[in-house]
Order: sequence, then C-alpha cells, then structure tokens
Amino acid sequence: MTPSIDAYRHVRDATLRLVDGLGDADMTPQSAEFASPAKWHLAHTTWFFEQFVLAAHGTGYRRFDERFGFLFNSYYNAVGARHERPRRGLLTRPTLQDVLAYRAHVDHAMADFLGARVPSEVGDLVELGLHHEQQHQELILTDLLHLFAQNPLRPGVRATLPAVPTDASPAPAWIEFEGGNIEVGHGGLGFAFDNEGPRHVVALRSFRLASRPVTNREWLAFVEAGGYADPQLWLSDGWDTVQAQRWQAPLYWETADDGTRLQMTLGGLLPLALDAPVSHVSFFEADAYARWAGKRLPTEFEWELAARDLPIEGGFVEQGAGRPRPASSGSGLSQMFGDVWEWTASPYVAYPGFRTAPGAVGEYNGKFMNGQYVLRGGSCASPRSHLRATYRNFFQPGQRWQFSGLRLAEDA
Amino acid sequence: MTPSIDAYRHVRDATLRLVDGLGDADMTPQSAEFASPAKWHLAHTTWFFEQFVLAAHGTGYRRFDERFGFLFNSYYNAVGARHERPRRGLLTRPTLQDVLAYRAHVDHAMADFLGARVPSEVGDLVELGLHHEQQHQELILTDLLHLFAQNPLRPGVRATLPAVPTDASPAPAWIEFEGGNIEVGHGGLGFAFDNEGPRHVVALRSFRLASRPVTNREWLAFVEAGGYADPQLWLSDGWDTVQAQRWQAPLYWETADDGTRLQMTLGGLLPLALDAPVSHVSFFEADAYARWAGKRLPTEFEWELAARDLPIEGGFVEQGAGRPRPASSGSGLSQMFGDVWEWTASPYVAYPGFRTAPGAVGEYNGKFMNGQYVLRGGSCASPRSHLRATYRNFFQPGQRWQFSGLRLAEDA
Amino acid sequence: MTPSIDAYRHVRDATLRLVDGLGDADMTPQSAEFASPAKWHLAHTTWFFEQFVLAAHGTGYRRFDERFGFLFNSYYNAVGARHERPRRGLLTRPTLQDVLAYRAHVDHAMADFLGARVPSEVGDLVELGLHHEQQHQELILTDLLHLFAQNPLRPGVRATLPAVPTDASPAPAWIEFEGGNIEVGHGGLGFAFDNEGPRHVVALRSFRLASRPVTNREWLAFVEAGGYADPQLWLSDGWDTVQAQRWQAPLYWETADDGTRLQMTLGGLLPLALDAPVSHVSFFEADAYARWAGKRLPTEFEWELAARDLPIEGGFVEQGAGRPRPASSGSGLSQMFGDVWEWTASPYVAYPGFRTAPGAVGEYNGKFMNGQYVLRGGSCASPRSHLRATYRNFFQPGQRWQFSGLRLAEDA
Amino acid sequence: MTPSIDAYRHVRDATLRLVDGLGDADMTPQSAEFASPAKWHLAHTTWFFEQFVLAAHGTGYRRFDERFGFLFNSYYNAVGARHERPRRGLLTRPTLQDVLAYRAHVDHAMADFLGARVPSEVGDLVELGLHHEQQHQELILTDLLHLFAQNPLRPGVRATLPAVPTDASPAPAWIEFEGGNIEVGHGGLGFAFDNEGPRHVVALRSFRLASRPVTNREWLAFVEAGGYADPQLWLSDGWDTVQAQRWQAPLYWETADDGTRLQMTLGGLLPLALDAPVSHVSFFEADAYARWAGKRLPTEFEWELAARDLPIEGGFVEQGAGRPRPASSGSGLSQMFGDVWEWTASPYVAYPGFRTAPGAVGEYNGKFMNGQYVLRGGSCASPRSHLRATYRNFFQPGQRWQFSGLRLAEDA
Repeated sequence: MTPSIDAYRHVRDATLRLVDGLGDADMTPQSAEFASPAKWHLAHTTWFFEQFVLAAHGTGYRRFDERFGFLFNSYYNAVGARHERPRRGLLTRPTLQDVLAYRAHVDHAMADFLGARVPSEVGDLVELGLHHEQQHQELILTDLLHLFAQNPLRPGVRATLPAVPTDASPAPAWIEFEGGNIEVGHGGLGFAFDNEGPRHVVALRSFRLASRPVTNREWLAFVEAGGYADPQLWLSDGWDTVQAQRWQAPLYWETADDGTRLQMTLGGLLPLALDAPVSHVSFFEADAYARWAGKRLPTEFEWELAARDLPIEGGFVEQGAGRPRPASSGSGLSQMFGDVWEWTASPYVAYPGFRTAPGAVGEYNGKFMNGQYVLRGGSCASPRSHLRATYRNFFQPGQRWQFSGLRLAEDA
Repeated sequence: MTPSIDAYRHVRDATLRLVDGLGDADMTPQSAEFASPAKWHLAHTTWFFEQFVLAAHGTGYRRFDERFGFLFNSYYNAVGARHERPRRGLLTRPTLQDVLAYRAHVDHAMADFLGARVPSEVGDLVELGLHHEQQHQELILTDLLHLFAQNPLRPGVRATLPAVPTDASPAPAWIEFEGGNIEVGHGGLGFAFDNEGPRHVVALRSFRLASRPVTNREWLAFVEAGGYADPQLWLSDGWDTVQAQRWQAPLYWETADDGTRLQMTLGGLLPLALDAPVSHVSFFEADAYARWAGKRLPTEFEWELAARDLPIEGGFVEQGAGRPRPASSGSGLSQMFGDVWEWTASPYVAYPGFRTAPGAVGEYNGKFMNGQYVLRGGSCASPRSHLRATYRNFFQPGQRWQFSGLRLAEDA
Repeated sequence: MTPSIDAYRHVRDATLRLVDGLGDADMTPQSAEFASPAKWHLAHTTWFFEQFVLAAHGTGYRRFDERFGFLFNSYYNAVGARHERPRRGLLTRPTLQDVLAYRAHVDHAMADFLGARVPSEVGDLVELGLHHEQQHQELILTDLLHLFAQNPLRPGVRATLPAVPTDASPAPAWIEFEGGNIEVGHGGLGFAFDNEGPRHVVALRSFRLASRPVTNREWLAFVEAGGYADPQLWLSDGWDTVQAQRWQAPLYWETADDGTRLQMTLGGLLPLALDAPVSHVSFFEADAYARWAGKRLPTEFEWELAARDLPIEGGFVEQGAGRPRPASSGSGLSQMFGDVWEWTASPYVAYPGFRTAPGAVGEYNGKFMNGQYVLRGGSCASPRSHLRATYRNFFQPGQRWQFSGLRLAEDA
Repeated sequence: MTPSIDAYRHVRDATLRLVDGLGDADMTPQSAEFASPAKWHLAHTTWFFEQFVLAAHGTGYRRFDERFGFLFNSYYNAVGARHERPRRGLLTRPTLQDVLAYRAHVDHAMADFLGARVPSEVGDLVELGLHHEQQHQELILTDLLHLFAQNPLRPGVRATLPAVPTDASPAPAWIEFEGGNIEVGHGGLGFAFDNEGPRHVVALRSFRLASRPVTNREWLAFVEAGGYADPQLWLSDGWDTVQAQRWQAPLYWETADDGTRLQMTLGGLLPLALDAPVSHVSFFEADAYARWAGKRLPTEFEWELAARDLPIEGGFVEQGAGRPRPASSGSGLSQMFGDVWEWTASPYVAYPGFRTAPGAVGEYNGKFMNGQYVLRGGSCASPRSHLRATYRNFFQPGQRWQFSGLRLAEDA
C-alpha cells in the first residue's frame, strides 16, 4: 500500500533524531566489518528511494550525485558494482552536511512523487523502503554502540539514559501451548517482508514457554557456574568461538576493579541492571545457556503460535529507554515484543513455496537464507510500528552486537 | 544389539582392504584441515574400541600405548586433551607397521571380549563403533582422493578403475508424492544414530522428485551457460565462496590442453563420464544449479518419504566402482542410495525431543548441529550395510570433497 | 639546546596549518595500520611534551586528561600500556575540539615552562619534541593523502595545488666522487637524532651519482617495458610483494578510461607530472628499477659524502607545492634535499659504538634498527628546517606511502 | 674447478647416509613452510645436476621423468614454473624408491659426464652443485629435527646420540683484535659462493671477541632473569615476535613435570646439556641476549678478521655428534667453526661491486639479499669441507630451526 507523505516523513525524520547531538566524526568510522558508519546508514537508506523509486519510476528525477550509487549500494548485485563493505569507514567525504543535503534532495523529490498518482506496485516499493529504513534505524543504534564501546573512554552515544527499575524479577511462569497442525507465516493484510510467507502448516507438539526472557541475574549465575568453561554445554562451533574470541560473558559486560559488574550502554558504562533481560548474547551462548538450564530454545513457530494474538507491547525505541527494561509483573507472557530480540532454535530458511522477487529487490532477503538463525520479537532499539508476530529477524550464530537475548522453552 | 565376532571382523577387515597396495608415506600427510591421513583413520577407529569398550568395560585390558589416546582422539572433549587436528599429517611415527600392530592388539582383545557375555548397553557401543568405522571407511577414500589430487602427477589411489557405461541418460522422469502429515525419523528395530530420532510427524505438501540425480552432462550445460559467473543464482555466502575459491566447476574437474574434460578419480585423471551423476559439488553449487534449472532441492523429509519403501540399491564401495555410475534405465526412482550423496535443502538440526546421550559418546552427533546441511542416500564410497532411509549425513555448505551430488525436486 | 618560546610556537603552529580546512571526520579514520589519523597526530605530539617534559620535569603541572597517556602513547613500552595501534581510527572522542583544547593546555604550560630556567638536558628533550613534531607533520600529510586516496571520490586534502612545470628534464649528468676513508655521521654542533652518530670512518670506493632523481617519465618506460612482470629484476621478497599486492605501477598512479596517466595527490586526482621525480615507490621497486637501468642505488654513505657540503635546497612543505617538482636545470647535483626522499641500498643499522639512551626516550630510534632501509634527503612534505646531510630516514622495503623516490648510482 | 668422479660420489653418498634408517613416511611430510621433506631434498639436489649440467651441457642425456623439473625446482624463475613451496609435503609420489632410482639415474649419467672432458665453466657448475648439495645435507638434518619435534611422541631421527661432556665451561676469555682497513671477502683460490666477493676493504675499529659461544647455562640465566618478558631488551620486531610466538626459551627447550630442562635433539628428548653452546636461537634472541649481557654481536667482518687464520676445527656432521658440544678448554678462540652457526650484527647485503651471474644460477644468492642476517662459522650439522672463513650463511631474524647460536663481542 502506498504510504502517505506524512507516513514517509514520519519514518525519515525518526532516523535523524537518532543521531541528534552527534558529530560527523562520530558517524564516520566503521568499528567492524559487520557494522556500518551512521553516516553511511543515512545515505544508504536514501539511496534506496533514489535507486528503486525515483530513478526507476520517477519522471525527470535528477540524481543528487551520480557517484553515490557506487558508494551507498549495500549488496545488490543486480544494480552494479559497489564500494567494498569493509571500507565504509574511510569515507570522510561526502561530509555529514553533504549527506543531509542528499537526504533533503531525495525527500523533496519523494514528496513530489507521492503527491501524484503512484502505481500500486511502486507504492509497495515505497513501503518497503520505509520498513528498510526502520531496520537501519535499529542498526544505527547498535552500530554506534559498538563503535563507542571500542573507545577506551567508553563515551555514551547519549548523554544520559533513564533509570531502570531494580525490583528483582520473580521466577518465570511456564505457559503451556497445545500442539497440532498450525498455520504460520504472514497471510493477511498489511505489510510483511517476502520471507514471512507463504503462510503454511507446520506440525507442532505441545510445549511451554517461559513468561519472560532470561535476565542478567540469571545469566550471571551461568557465568559464575563456569558456563563459559565447559565444552559439554556448547555446540562445537560455539565452543570454537568461545575459545577464539575468549568470551567470558555477554558482549559489553565489564568488571570494575572493585568487582562491580558494568555494562557498556548507549549511555556509556553503567552498572549492570540485574533484572533486565540479558542482551548482546549470541545464538551460541543462548543455546549453551538453555542446555545448562535444562531447557531449550523455542522454534520460531512455537514462538509465533504464542505471540500471534498478543498486542505489540514492550520497550521500543520510541520510548527512548535505550536499553532493555525488566519485565513488569504479570501472570502471562510479557515482553514478547520489545526490549530484546529472542533467539530461536530455527535456522533461517525459506518457507515452502517461497520464491524471490525478480530483479534487485529480490536480493533483499532470499540470498541470506544460509548459516543464520531466526530471532523473533523486537528490541528496545526497534520502532514499534516495525514489528509483528510473523516478523523474522536473522543473524549469524556468533553475532551479538544486536540487542539479542532469549526466552526458554520446554516440551510439555 | 551386540555384534558377533564375525560381524566385527567383517567390518574391520574391510577397512584394511581399502588401503591395500598403499605405502606408509601415502597414508601419512594431511592435505587439508578437513581431511585426515589414512593411517590416522586406521588408528582412530581402533582407539574408539579401546577407549569406549575395552578400557571402560573390559577386564584387565592393557592399552597398546598410553600415548595413543592423545594422538587418536578426534573430538571428544569428555575424554581429555588431544592432538590438534591440523597437525595430524606430521605423525610419521607411529609407523604404519605400528598402527597395524595396534589394530591387531585391539582386535585380539575385542575377540576375547565379544566371546564372553556382553551387557546390552556395551554391545550397543560395539555396534556404534562398527558404524563409526564404516563412516571412516568412506572418509579414507575421500581423503586419499583429496591428497592424491593435490599431487601434480595425479596418481591413482588404485591402479585402475572399472569402465563406466557411456549410454546417454534420458531426461529424468518426475515422480509425484502426496503430502500430508508424515512420520519421519527412525523408530523401528535395527541400528540408527541418535540424530535419526525421535520419530515424529511433519506436515508436507505434495511434491515431485526427479527419477535420477543430475548428471555431469547436465552440469556441464550449467557451467557453459555461465552459472559460476552469475551472482543472481547464488546464496550470498555461496557467491562469496565462488569468488574466494575461484570455483568454475565441481572439484576435481580439469580441462586438458585440447579442451577435453577430465576428472580426478581414485583411478587417477580420467575423461569425465558425462552420464554419471555429478559429484564433488557443494551445497552452494547444488542450490545454485537448482535455481538455474527452475527447480529446487528436496527437503530431507521429502527425500525420506520417497525413499522409505525402497530397497538399498545403487553403487557402493563393495562393488568397487570407485566412482559414481550412470543411472540404469527404469521408470521409477533410481540411485536413491549409492553413487552420490544427495544434498537436501534441510539444515542439520535436532529433531523435536532429541537429547544427546550423557558422556563422551553424546558428543558423537549433537554438538555438530549447526551450520551444516543434511545429505541423504549414500555414495560409491559407502558400505551398503551402513545405509538406510532415515540416515542423516551432514556437511558444511561449502564442502565438496565427498561424493556429493543432487537430485532435483519441485512443488506438485 | 633549549628552544625559545618562539621556536616552540613556530613548530606547533605549523602543525595546525597543515590541517586547515579539514573537519573532525577527515581527521578521525585510520586507512591502514601503518598510518594514523591526523587527530591522533595532533594529540600524540602534544602528549610527547606532556609526558617527557611537563609531567617529568614541570612543577605542579596538571594533566589535561589522565586517560590521554593511554590513548596517545605511540610505542614507548617504558611509560606503560597503550591503545592498540590498529584501533586508532575508532577514537571519535576526544573530538577535534577536545584535542585542540589539549594542545592549547600543553602549549600554555610549555610557554610557562620555557619562560623559566630550563636545565640543559630538559631543554634537549624540548628540542627533541619539536623535531619529533616535525616528523609527524610529514606523516600528517602522507597519512591524509593515503586516507583520501582510499575514497572512490578521490577528494583533495587541499582544494588546489600549484601547477608543476612541464619542461622535459634532460638526461641526468653523472657526478663522480672519489673514494677513500670518509668520516660519516653527525659530529658537530646543532641537533641530530641519536641514530646519526657516532661519527665514524667508512672505506668507500669511487662512484658516480646521477645529478637528479629518476622521473615519472623514466619510470613509465620501466612500466611499459614490463618491469613489473619480470622476476629476474626483483629481489625475492620484492617479487613476492609485487604478486601479493598486484603492483603494476607506483602507489597513486591510475589510468583514466582514455588511457591518460593520473596520480592521486594532495590536490586530488591530477594528470601525472611526467618530469617530476617519481614518488611513492618502495625500496623493492627502486631496487628493481635500478637493476633494469643497469645501475644501482647509492649507499647511505655515498649519498652523505655527496651531500655534505650542499645547501638544504629543494621543494619543502613550507613552499606548499604539495607534490614533487621537476629538477631545475643546472650542471651539478640537484634536489638532494626536498621533493622526494631517496632510497639507499643501506639497511638501517646502528653505527659502530651506538648506544640507546636509558629510559623511554631510548626507544625513539634504536629498537627499529631491523628490516628497514635508509632514505636520505627530504621531501615536499618535509619542513626544511628539519633536514640535514646526516639525517637518516627509514622505512620497510615494501612501504610506499611516503614521498619516496630514488637517485641512481654507479661504480666509477 | 671440475670435481673428480670420486669427489662427486663422496658428497652424493654422504647425503644418503643422513637418512639411513628412515622410512618413506618419515621423509614425506613438511612441518613448516620454511622446511622441506627429506625426500624432496634428495630429489631437488639431484635435479640441480640434471637441470644445470646434464640437460644443459650433456650429450644425449634423457631425463628420468619430464615432470620432475616442475616438482623439484626450488626457486629458479628462469627455468620455468614450479610446484608451490608450501605443498611439498603432499608428494607421497614419487615414492622414496622412485627418488632413489632418480638419484641413481643421474649419478650414472654424471659419472659418464665427468669421465669425459668437461669445459671449465661446466666443471664450475658441478662444483657448485656439490656445495649446493652440502647445504641441503644440513637442511635435511634441521628439517627432520623440526618435523620430529612436532610429534608429541618426540621420536629421535637417530636411535642414539653420543654423550656430551658435562664439565662446566669456564667464563670466556676476551680476545682483542686491532682495527684498521681490513680486506674481507673471498679472493684467493678454491671454491666460494658469489656472495663472498668481491674482496674489498672495510674500516674496522678495535674490538674483542669472546673465546667461545654463549652456553645453555648462560642462556638459562637470561631466561630466569626474565629476559623474554622485558621489552626494553628487544628490537621492536623481535618483541612483536616474542609475543606473537609466545617464545619463552630457545626452540626445542622443554621443561619436564619435575622441572628438569630438556631439549629435543636428533636423538629425541634429552636433558639439556648446560655447557654446550646454546643453539636454535633467532637473531632477535641473540641480539636481546647480548644487550642483556652488556655486550653486542660482532659484525660479520669482525668475525672474519678473527677467523681468517684459524684452522677449520669444531664439531661437524662427519663426527656424528648430532648436537653442539661444549668448548674444549684452551686459551684462544675455540669453536669458531662447527657446533653452532654464530649470528652476526650484519644484514645480508651485497659486497661493493657484486653482480649476479646471468641466467638461472644467478638466482642462487643475490635475490635473497634482503631482510636477513649473516651467520658465520658452521655447525654440528655442517660438512667440514663446506666451510671457510669467508662463508656467509644467512637467515631471517626470526628463524631458529637451524643450529644457530652466538658469540659475544665488545668494543676495545
């Protein structure tokens, strides 16, 4: 469905608010191959509209700079050569001012474009571009956090973060779900990515889900029980990663000289919030923790069955928390959306009957269906309007710079 | 079920016949981290019986050499430290004679052991050891082939191979299978690995399978159509691998100065058998080929449904072909077993309810359930008695030194 | 000798003029492990005075920020831990403004310090600090050039560069020098680095030096004659480097679609100045060129003998050329100083009797006396007042991001 | 000078005696890129005569196997393509029997060739081939030692080694030499490699040399004083190597569970001979030790001046010791030849006026004149007849798998 100009502006403006107060230098370096500079994100999301909407379907559109297609294409082989990913942090030019001008140029043209009649399939591309931009909003935050965490000064991306409640979480309840032949995947109205369909039937067995995600306090017990030192708990590739990367705790955990546990956050180095959901753990860690706890990770379909009738509630980027917040007390499932993405046991593969779209847009999701696991839900860095029960996020099992946590499951 | 002494000897003797005519030097170097020296395989399979049967359950057993536990443990963390895998090719000592003496020592003790009453759970370990040895029989051949293929002289592991029929294969027929709730996994009598269970229900849609695997002739058309040069056909990780490894054809394909297509085989460099199944392709290649052909790979459950009532027929190691042979004509599914392993679209994950066994033997399969894909069937290097419809072989998607091919599927 | 406040300010101000017009973002990323961000250079040179002068010898000096010692120590093991070199480009904080404030803080304290009586050995440290800063002035330019050259837009560090004369250089004359027992090394008044002494005698044979450096035009003939494709011309390590790095021309040479030869310069991508000295060549390339030309590189002592009575003349950073300029016509040696550093055949080793100073300052030069070659003269990025005939610059034989060229020699 | 048939046979037979008692498997793997399999050495030295003498200058010579030129060329670009060095350990074929037959074939042809009139320049090639073979004799031993040292069983290349005297060495005497203009390099009769000339004059200052090499006992004091943990003692590249390789002692030193110091030798793991010269140390270690001891390494010319009138005495391969032996008591310089090669402070560069020979043989020495240091003397693995006072051995400063030690020097 073609978004309105207001909807377009709403998403685009939200992107800029994320980098409010940061300078060009903050937004230029690249701290790891998997991360990108914030300035690059600002430009790449703009290029998406320029390339797939304005240049392809606009009338008389003039590109802001012919060379930006090369610089800001991320991975679309079908639209030509591109700058090498690991070198994104060397683009001191264009400057931030140039990139903001690029955004204004494209936004101006998009306003004109959306003001006229837009064919439905092109409107779908605009909608895709906005959801794409929301994905990059989350990456802007997680990539900035990663960059700032490399700095020995541990500066905050934001000057302060709201406090986090410190009431101890009660033990989770176990909510049971009955198995059977269940329909999963997106099938109704509203936007969904191609990888959420086709809707199809899976055979599930009965299972139970924990009412809330695993907390930092629980994870600390795992650390102190030697969880990172016992190969019997780990997948073989996970154990290799633990040793190669010398993991001893989640990413961003630190220990002060006096033994206090700290965590690098968007607000800098803060005391670890023990009752908040653990975040910045990899699939390998989540899987090992579940084994240690005598439980398992849910499959993505178990998760979807549990979530399908729930409202989209939790801590999102709009609330500005900047980090996961503890579960509110309650008897049912809490925090299924927001706060932390939840690793599932499901490899990221195509649903039966899945076909990639022809052309460059077909490269959006399908070609990444290898070597990754599905995460469900959403996080404190996700826009609330971006999420739904059928949403499939995915990352490699060793990645942990996202706000990724876990919720335990068990057989009924 | 406890194997008889004869059954034990039958498997153990078959291992030695594979290296008949080879010298100690042929069996010592390691050509890649994923491969092992044949001498190492001879010793490791022996260590399995020594470690898990004789030392654990025998009476008064005396180890052949206390230091061999360190040298010949493959990956069992629970039984202590071990020699680093990439350094297996530096073990010029023990000599082949020493290793043969080790085998004789253990075989002698096993004969005594099996001659007495064996508790059922220990008998199961002996049976596991024999199936384990059969797996290594296949690896001995594929690892020797890889080693000999690195030699610019392209020597044959065997002096000669039987000729391969050259009748052109007809186009495959498409055999349809009806979907529904299907029981999969091992559930009956007889040996199976832990990863083949628990038996459970999956919901399948109707589909069709090709009557035979893809042939070298068909693959050559893919090569000549530029299949290795078009990123649109490949998964993203696959395309990265194509470029990094400069793949342009299956492993072991070569082109003579006069343009003749050749293939390195266990019998040395021979003309490519155009109507034999393509082998030594990776999952990435199989997946790209299927996309190019407008088809897809079957899931492991589709494959199992199709295979579950078929006899175990095809080209196996016992027949001594040494390479895949063309399909015999016939109207139904052919070569579901033997000749080439068939890549499926299924990531290698645990079946619902799967639990690893406690202790070292629990490391056998479970800890590898990440980043690999299931292959089904069997190959010309597999012992026939080792195979069954529920058997799950698995390798990383970029590996191709096994006799791995593919069979196409499509939605009904 | 203790420098005056004016001398101190003169050098310090010159540093800031080099980055005039650049933003924080331009000065933050690190384009290679061997290069450093300009912002880092600004801070490191300041830290040198803070650490070795003010903190060690000042009264009541208060450090600007206690954490900067960790961030801006380059390689002095004796003064504690330091930030890892390859991660210098991730320091978005401190900002450029912070670093400029740091400079002002230290400059203010230094003015006070120099206004009082300074013990002679501390005055020597101040002088060392200024020469150190001049070395970093050159690195600021060469590191910025490297960074900007990685940008597909090829932006100029400066908006424009002065034009370069295009008169064809005549063939060089060959100037003869008589051998014998020659005194080399620094031995008189005035500042010199420790590695320039002790003055000592070497036995030289008679030789001839070319009157000017090799030009781009001459180097182009080498390229077109296949110099980069003939292993017989190269040292073994050089040939390995040519192949690994795929060198086909000096660093920063490019070829336009129409065949025009271009060069990335501080002013962006410009037509190659054919009669200017070739620059940005490695020792390996210089050595191979000399072999191809039937000549050889001079030793550092031959060069010093030829230069010892010459005025310090040539193109320096003060003249703002920004790139090497062609030789002015004349009958004698020209451009011995300035324009391009000249690779010599001499490995960088200690002179007889050399001893490193005790403490951290002793790490300045001595510990690098391995695996490098001496360059003599100076370049268009060197401050004129920094140079002298005994000066020993040194880099690894594969490095070529400096303004490094060569002058040929032959036996008499 | 053309060697006699007897001289030829004498050297060739000595090679085979070195591998007496070893099997094909012992001689096939490659334990590091810098080392080669013994079988490869046997073949390569043979290829040298086939390629440069018989094929180039023989009449009607028929190559044993046309493909061996590709397999056994080491690094001569001028005679065509060659097998990649890191893959030498995968050549299980040709077998040892094949290689011995190759040696017999070439030796037979060489006997015929040397029985007829040989032009003087071809005779010089034969002589070069024999000195070349002697160099490889030493490498056969050091490469076998390295391979066997990788084996956790620490087998001996030889069944036993003669005992080493255990009398404590007295402190070394310091022998003084007067400086001046000294002629160095080979200039008289007899064979020398091209890199030993031209003979030329160097200006030396007066100096003193220790009467014997540094011993294991002395080195142990350096280890126990924390020599491997103090960066102030090391060249920067040396310190990087210490940390990257985790060096804590010379190569092949081990410590038993009870604290006993052991050393892996050609006879297996033996107690460290405290009064024997330290061996298997790198230039970086030798340099750091000398700094710690308040001395320095001699230059190669200081060494040559001290050695030029001495007889070639010491422990050599002919005596079969298999490891360095302690100095015999005596008042003058001892062990200048034999037992251990002595690192000098001199980078390996060309002497003034050095020119490489045209053609492939010119690649013998000249192209390696970068990044290495000169060692002088000879070792317990060197043939005595191979050594002389002007001989320049050379290795990279981080290499230590040779029998390399050091002798201290100081200024007079």
